[in-house]
Parts: sequence; C-alpha cells; structure tokens
Amino acid sequence: MSRSPREIYEDYLGRRKAILRALTQDIEQFYEQCDPTRENLCLYGNPDGNWEVALPAEEVPPEQPEPALGVNFARDGMERSAWISLVAVHSDSWLLGLAFYKGARLNREEREELFSLINKLPTCYENDDGDVDAAG
Amino acid sequence: MSRSPREIYEDYLGRRKAILRALTQDIEQFYEQCDPTRENLCLYGNPDGNWEVALPAEEVPPEQPEPALGVNFARDGMERSAWISLVAVHSDSWLLGLAFYKGARLNREEREELFSLINKLPTCYENDDGDVDAAG
Repeated sequence: MSRSPREIYEDYLGRRKAILRALTQDIEQFYEQCDPTRENLCLYGNPDGNWEVALPAEEVPPEQPEPALGVNFARDGMERSAWISLVAVHSDSWLLGLAFYKGARLNREEREELFSLINKLPTCYENDDGDVDAAG
Repeated sequence: MSRSPREIYEDYLGRRKAILRALTQDIEQFYEQCDPTRENLCLYGNPDGNWEVALPAEEVPPEQPEPALGVNFARDGMERSAWISLVAVHSDSWLLGLAFYKGARLNREEREELFSLINKLPTCYENDDGDVDAAG
C-alpha cells in the first residue's frame, strides 16, 4: 500500500491521460454517454489510460476518493465548452485528491516531490481550454 | 471567483482547523453524530473553523468537491483509531482537492505557492496520528 512519489505519479499520469482523452479526442462518445436522463454518473480516469462514465462506487465510504457525481446532469444546462471546463476542473480536483490520498503516508519532502511532478504538467482544465485567462 | 493562493490558503486553514477539531477535541461529539443507522453522512470542515456532520449536497454535480460519503457507515466496523485515521485521510484528500478546485485559474507558479503553504503544515492524518510510520 505504501508507494513512492514516482509510483503514485505514474498512476496519476495514466488517469490524467484518460480524462484528457475523454475531454478531447473522445469528446463525442463522452458527451453521448453523459445522458442527463440516466442516473448520477461520474467520469473515471483509470491508470491504464482508459476512461469510463459510470455510476459511483456502491461501497460507502468509498475505497478511495470518488470523482464528481452527476456530471451528466449539467450537460444540457450550459454551453458545451463550459460543461467540458466544469468536468475538467472537477477532474483535476479528483486526480490531485486521489494522488495525495494514495500518498497519505508520504512525508513532507515526498509530498513536495509528488506535487512537483504533477505540477510540471498542465491541468486538464488548462489543457482543455488552451487559454486559461479567456475561460468563462 | 478568482482568488489568490493566500486567499485560498486562508479558506483551507479554517477548514483544516475544523476537521482537526472534529477528530481531536470534539471527537466524542463527532463519533456520536456519525451514527451508522442514519443515512450517508459526510464530515464538512467550514472556513470559519466549525465542522458539521451532514448529508451530502443535494445539487449534482455539486457546486464544489464533496467530502467522502458515508463515513458513519465505517464507524462500527473497525477500531476507533483506524476509523479516525480513515476519516483523516479522506478529509486531507478533500481539503487539498477543494483548495485546488478553488485554484483552478491559478497558473503554475501560483499553484506551487499554494501547495508550499499547505505543505508546511502536518496533514490531518499526521496530526491525528502523531507517528505516521507506526500507523496501521
């Protein structure tokens, strides 16, 4: 269970790649799967680089932090680009929270190391948006 | 909505203080409120330093990231100290995810600044536990 900053970062990288793919090249499938008439759905990024839109974990408290619930319900109430940004910001928060959940036993220096690795990359929100300052 | 690293940190500080209080000096009240026969409950730390055990936000997707759901259901299935650690680790993940959710528009240098401020303090898990290495 105890993992190094580098191992946690590798997990983060795969999940981030999955989220980015859902929000860019796979955006049509992602959009379609987020049907607001379905139940509460979440966007999961998996460490293998694949994403899925699925119901939240049944186990409570969950085994690990869960992504934002019900992203499908927001889809039709706002502009598409704003909805994608919303999902991106929630996903960034989840990815970071999950990485540090996995890193709960790291000491301060290791946490710094993990954050530095993560912070070298653009966030999903930045990546999706291109220009952060211009974002709604 | 756009806030500086320092402002986001102030919000974080109040919420962290609230969580720590729930898990230390107010532990009896916190324990009691986490009745497993009730519905799914969450531990919220508020920016004013007060904590509450409450149902999750009704709005989905939520306005901001939500803490772990159903911490009350785990209370009676494990040792008390392990349960407190579990809540602490989930709370740390939530506090960090929430801070960076609020900081979605920060640039890389500002994110680094925010993390450095946060990482100067022990996590709730460390604070609760005293000795991280000895933790279950």
